[in-house]
Amino acid sequence: MPRYTVADLGDEVGRIVRVCGWLQPAGPAAEPEPAGSGTLADRTGAVRLTMPSDAVPNPGSAVEVVGTVVGTVAAAAGQSLELIVDRLSVAGPAEPDLPVSAASTQAERLDWRHLDLRRPGAQLILRVQTTLEQALRAAWAEEDFIEIHSPKLIPTGPRPQELFDLRYFERTAWLAQSPQFYKQMAMAAGLDRVFEIGPVFRYEPAVSPVHATEFTSVDVELAWIDSEADVMAAAELWLRAAIDAVARRHGDDIAALFGIRVAVPVVPFPRYTLSQAWEIARTAGHDGGGGDSGEGDDLDRDGECLLGRHVADRHGHQFVWVTDYPESARPFFHMRSAEGSSLSRSFDLLWNGIEVASGAQREHRHDRLLDQARSRHVPLDPIHRFLDFFRYGCPPHGGLGFGLSRLLMCLLGLPDIREATLLPRDRERMTP
Amino acid sequence: MPRYTVADLGDEVGRIVRVCGWLQPAGPAAEPEPAGSGTLADRTGAVRLTMPSDAVPNPGSAVEVVGTVVGTVAAAAGQSLELIVDRLSVAGPAEPDLPVSAASTQAERLDWRHLDLRRPGAQLILRVQTTLEQALRAAWAEEDFIEIHSPKLIPTGPRPQELFDLRYFERTAWLAQSPQFYKQMAMAAGLDRVFEIGPVFRYEPAVSPVHATEFTSVDVELAWIDSEADVMAAAELWLRAAIDAVARRHGDDIAALFGIRVAVPVVPFPRYTLSQAWEIARTAGHDGGGGDSGEGDDLDRDGECLLGRHVADRHGHQFVWVTDYPESARPFFHMRSAEGSSLSRSFDLLWNGIEVASGAQREHRHDRLLDQARSRHVPLDPIHRFLDFFRYGCPPHGGLGFGLSRLLMCLLGLPDIREATLLPRDRERMTP
Repeated sequence: MPRYTVADLGDEVGRIVRVCGWLQPAGPAAEPEPAGSGTLADRTGAVRLTMPSDAVPNPGSAVEVVGTVVGTVAAAAGQSLELIVDRLSVAGPAEPDLPVSAASTQAERLDWRHLDLRRPGAQLILRVQTTLEQALRAAWAEEDFIEIHSPKLIPTGPRPQELFDLRYFERTAWLAQSPQFYKQMAMAAGLDRVFEIGPVFRYEPAVSPVHATEFTSVDVELAWIDSEADVMAAAELWLRAAIDAVARRHGDDIAALFGIRVAVPVVPFPRYTLSQAWEIARTAGHDGGGGDSGEGDDLDRDGECLLGRHVADRHGHQFVWVTDYPESARPFFHMRSAEGSSLSRSFDLLWNGIEVASGAQREHRHDRLLDQARSRHVPLDPIHRFLDFFRYGCPPHGGLGFGLSRLLMCLLGLPDIREATLLPRDRERMTP
Repeated sequence: MPRYTVADLGDEVGRIVRVCGWLQPAGPAAEPEPAGSGTLADRTGAVRLTMPSDAVPNPGSAVEVVGTVVGTVAAAAGQSLELIVDRLSVAGPAEPDLPVSAASTQAERLDWRHLDLRRPGAQLILRVQTTLEQALRAAWAEEDFIEIHSPKLIPTGPRPQELFDLRYFERTAWLAQSPQFYKQMAMAAGLDRVFEIGPVFRYEPAVSPVHATEFTSVDVELAWIDSEADVMAAAELWLRAAIDAVARRHGDDIAALFGIRVAVPVVPFPRYTLSQAWEIARTAGHDGGGGDSGEGDDLDRDGECLLGRHVADRHGHQFVWVTDYPESARPFFHMRSAEGSSLSRSFDLLWNGIEVASGAQREHRHDRLLDQARSRHVPLDPIHRFLDFFRYGCPPHGGLGFGLSRLLMCLLGLPDIREATLLPRDRERMTP
């Protein structure tokens, strides 16, 4: 007998169907389910069951049900469905007393993540993630991008204090904190335009709502750009397409479960230089930062929030680019804005005041790259294979990287990156 | 001025265009290019240049060229294009004497992988990979799969001798050798159908043409299956769709560069039990194995090749499933074929005699899983969080995992997995 999903049942009123899913616990603050009734959920929704009262398995059990679909028209709520159970079989029984409930703390929920993920909101986050990636990949496919899988085991790095190291047979290896160098290798290889969606690893000793030691990075790199503005303009279109796809596919569910109306952003996004951004933050009451020390510090969390609020008020926009970072605040391989300039061709992207992406035009000329590394006192030996990428003809190029969970946080208004991560990893949490 | 690709030029004969790419070295056995001529390649192809003979940069240089497209109709070869260069500028100069050529060894090529990847064949492999993944993802999107990103940093594993360990702040962590347990967690979470394409890490001390210490695994898991045959039937359709997409998009290029006609496989694929497979191998001259020892050993390389040849001769098919492995030859969490049976509901998939996938129906019942672990003397403590997935209602499920580079090897007839990997990793190679 074929399997129906709950979402299909509306078309089957009066018919006998087979549905498979798990029995939901009674609502947190609600009364226990009355004898002989229950709720079955699958990946598409939930439906009320009426069954013999002695046949009700423990909440959480994975069950297969055969029964008749009954439709009742409630005045306010539109059509509401119910399943009169004819046969129920328990494919995977649950022990009594589920270890998590709506009253559990985040830590308890994450300890039992497989039960936590049964919440419709948690499932929706993963569906939105899937749609977001699909839409981004579709946009890149249109533009003839190659998908790469760069190695996560790397021989060394320029900033080993930010990396995890491991014993690799007779030597030490490190875990990649970004596919950056390999995206640039792809440019030197003539691949022209590449993307990668994969894990990166960061030695983050502090536990915070926006950081993780392992996360999924969405990385893109483009050759033959005229400047970093080409990367920004392209990224705006990709993001708009992806958010539009999410709004069309999941907009109603997001509104119902997260109380948020997904706003498809207008392009181009507002753009401010870092000094303008600091000026705005100071005008809005922030004291300090912003080059007072002559260093042109990056925005801190308060500065980001103030800028985000300003952009929302002034432009009615959730996004803002911050550009023209001092070269001293960025990696040595970012291109300078002009000959002798102390600024770099780099940018960050904020969404509702949270940094979701960072990028730049890179320096592709071997001699200048060497100069920039030397003037920053970057040891050349650990990066000589990176420097080799630029010795035999590398085109001008640039790109950016998004944090996938950060995008989901901002899109859905989530308070913590852990809610947007299948299984979060930080200094304190490595399980399940 | 907009950028044209080489593939676009056919429509622009007589016009002035701008193209960007790298200057190709003269052919390996060929004469050096005559003075004033050269070849420009981009991601779409190559075109002959005619230019002032004093303007020719070093081979490999990244150049931008503005010139007039000239078409010549050669009797045998159809239309052939040429670009009469008006202006050439070097965006990324190459040092003289490229360090690799067609005469280089594989090790030399891999040391300079960014130059090696400029070969049209190497670029095609990455394009085929991109198309393969796109087509698989499209098939899964049709069926409402969720894409997951499971953690690569894991707290422990049942077979630590096959894992890499690393210092993770105050403790030890391991690198995941498969997303297996997390795919199963997703089933217990009610996600119903998930896939993941991501890196896995294997402690492989031996260096071989078909093994790597890091590779991209294509993993799928499905709930509410009746048996492992559901997984196999689904996988056949996904593979057929993906190979069909490759054939349609790259078939001619593959024929030209690899001398192979891509065969879209007929479904269902031939299926043999492991004992039948051994019988075939023995009949074809293999001496030994196949349960003579009562253990039901897995096919060795010779056995796989003999079976592959038999299937090609007998069925005209490149694929074959091998089923009914003894439970002792498979992980403890595979489901037994029947109550008390010594066989498991597991399978491997061979393509032209090379194993490309492995899978099974899993045991989803907590009590039986515990029994199976105990009877196999699997220590329970390191896997207690895995066992927890099955305590609160887990549906029947199964799935499989493909090695992405293995698929490409078989599809394109490559002799070594390294050729199908952006940057291979093995005990001896960690660079670039």
